Amino acid sequence: MIEDKNQQRTNLGTLGEFGLIEHLTANIEITQPSTLKGIGDDAAVLDFKDKKVVVSTDLLVEGVHFDLAYMPLKHLGYKAVVVNLSDIAAMNAKPTQITVSLAVSNRFPVEALDELYEGIKLAAKIYKVDIVGGDTTSSQKGLIISVTAIGEADAEDLVYRNGAGATDLLVVTGDVGAAYMGLQVLEREKQVFQVNPNNQPDLDAYNYLIERQLKPEARTDVRGMLKELGVTPTAMIDVSDGLSSEIIHICKQSGVGCNLYEEKIPADPQLINTCEEFNIDITTVAINGGEDYELLFTIKMEDFDKIKGNPNFTVIGHTTQESEGIHLITRANTKIPLKSRGWNALQENE
Amino acid sequence: MIEDKNQQRTNLGTLGEFGLIEHLTANIEITQPSTLKGIGDDAAVLDFKDKKVVVSTDLLVEGVHFDLAYMPLKHLGYKAVVVNLSDIAAMNAKPTQITVSLAVSNRFPVEALDELYEGIKLAAKIYKVDIVGGDTTSSQKGLIISVTAIGEADAEDLVYRNGAGATDLLVVTGDVGAAYMGLQVLEREKQVFQVNPNNQPDLDAYNYLIERQLKPEARTDVRGMLKELGVTPTAMIDVSDGLSSEIIHICKQSGVGCNLYEEKIPADPQLINTCEEFNIDITTVAINGGEDYELLFTIKMEDFDKIKGNPNFTVIGHTTQESEGIHLITRANTKIPLKSRGWNALQENE
Repeated sequence: MIEDKNQQRTNLGTLGEFGLIEHLTANIEITQPSTLKGIGDDAAVLDFKDKKVVVSTDLLVEGVHFDLAYMPLKHLGYKAVVVNLSDIAAMNAKPTQITVSLAVSNRFPVEALDELYEGIKLAAKIYKVDIVGGDTTSSQKGLIISVTAIGEADAEDLVYRNGAGATDLLVVTGDVGAAYMGLQVLEREKQVFQVNPNNQPDLDAYNYLIERQLKPEARTDVRGMLKELGVTPTAMIDVSDGLSSEIIHICKQSGVGCNLYEEKIPADPQLINTCEEFNIDITTVAINGGEDYELLFTIKMEDFDKIKGNPNFTVIGHTTQESEGIHLITRANTKIPLKSRGWNALQENE
Repeated sequence: MIEDKNQQRTNLGTLGEFGLIEHLTANIEITQPSTLKGIGDDAAVLDFKDKKVVVSTDLLVEGVHFDLAYMPLKHLGYKAVVVNLSDIAAMNAKPTQITVSLAVSNRFPVEALDELYEGIKLAAKIYKVDIVGGDTTSSQKGLIISVTAIGEADAEDLVYRNGAGATDLLVVTGDVGAAYMGLQVLEREKQVFQVNPNNQPDLDAYNYLIERQLKPEARTDVRGMLKELGVTPTAMIDVSDGLSSEIIHICKQSGVGCNLYEEKIPADPQLINTCEEFNIDITTVAINGGEDYELLFTIKMEDFDKIKGNPNFTVIGHTTQESEGIHLITRANTKIPLKSRGWNALQENE
């Protein structure tokens, strides 16, 4: 599907390990005042002064988290950074640095890693984080990307998963479910392509869904918005595994119950149309589809007026006493227990 | 070679991703005052007050960095932590936290990961670092371990690779080459085992070498020793890729030359005997063999008296003007250019 326009193929071994790392990390600029020393020593050196430091790490594995048949390497590099920055945003912190480690099989030429790094560097530039370290080595099979993201925050701004009270409002940014349906569209096109490689797919009707899957963004903008509105969430998490899974995390860790209202869940019109076309229940997708990288948070009821009518935020439910449990209130006003059917990397693989 | 005494095999899928992470990270204790929040949220939260923060990351890949035929999983977990702490020690900083990410194929039962985590936890306990985060996912093939180590130091204590002057002394801790020969011994025994699985090898004559390979230690003790002696190195690096490779790093980054004296390079008696047995030149092994995780550093000439006679430190050479180049002075007093033949993960793999 992705045409390989790059005809040059330089074997990885020709550069050697140090040469390759030097090649990939050349021209990396440092812009964060907290970065004292980036790549090039045994470790990076950072200075956060009186700020607290947040650290998060994620592994992306070929064949498990991504499929290079439809994931261009530049997008993959971008996404690998974004999913980690999303974790920092979910602490209500500001991302400042990342380290990037790659394990690659020798089937990848240097040019492929250049493309991957282009995406990594683009994300670093857009989100204003410094690439301060990393390791590049060979793998027995496929491509593995490990990113560690570091961020900073004042102690009073940090938001954990366990701070929700029993009478809070449940809020989500943006819309959910689109990234999952984007993956379904891409999977279908991959199958069409395998049958007929000359088929030129018209994907215009799905462009939002596909972009959500291939080039997600981290909601690092939400921290500033909430600050301006004078709202500090009581608990927060990012939507990586699916809305239901994340709601359950907040509820369990905060010791509260929750009512989620089906009719309130924000969905993009493209998602609605595509779910109809695929004959899939949209609520199932919106609740269980992962990788949206929106933020899910709870706020005190008295903060409702501050976010009311704001197009960035949708109130989708409210917390309750723990004993009341965690439920979805359907359009038909039926109360059904919310289950986590989030994507499970360990069960899908052989 | 390693007998599998563990008969129980619980399939990874039975626990699910969250269940597995919870299972592996249960009972992890936090002891560092700088750890405010460990595992269990979107990110860990750390507080270093007025200290500088150092960060380093490494990937270990099955079949490239380790062979489970002779590397027990507990040792592997221990070593994965140690190699990262060594990078922190090489900055003259104190390691405080680690994050650990695993990608595992489903051929590993839960019990195998338990064993791996036992080694990780043991290293964390011995080196007094907190395990504050991680990710566990599936891989298409083999086991991949990604560790990020975080440490702290006062600004004036940090030592970089680029600070060596042209008249400094070159010093190494402990001895070098043993880890490499340990690997040669293990490789030979693996071949013997493949021919005759009933052969019970007597490895007593190689126990030091094998321990250096299977259970290396990070020289986090050196920082305190040097502080007590009143010595601050001008440049420092850890010996992971081989002495020659590390000397060249320091020289290039500091803009100096160097004379390394063959007769001064510290070698364990077991290494000497085993090199004879294998008919391998000991200097080649001591200079190019990696994974010793000793520290290599430069000090000002006037600090010589402070370390003289100290069994932890050996002066192996001195820096020179850059124009004089980087040389090995042999026992026969011949001057030959020092080349980096360090282990190269990207060329060895298919």
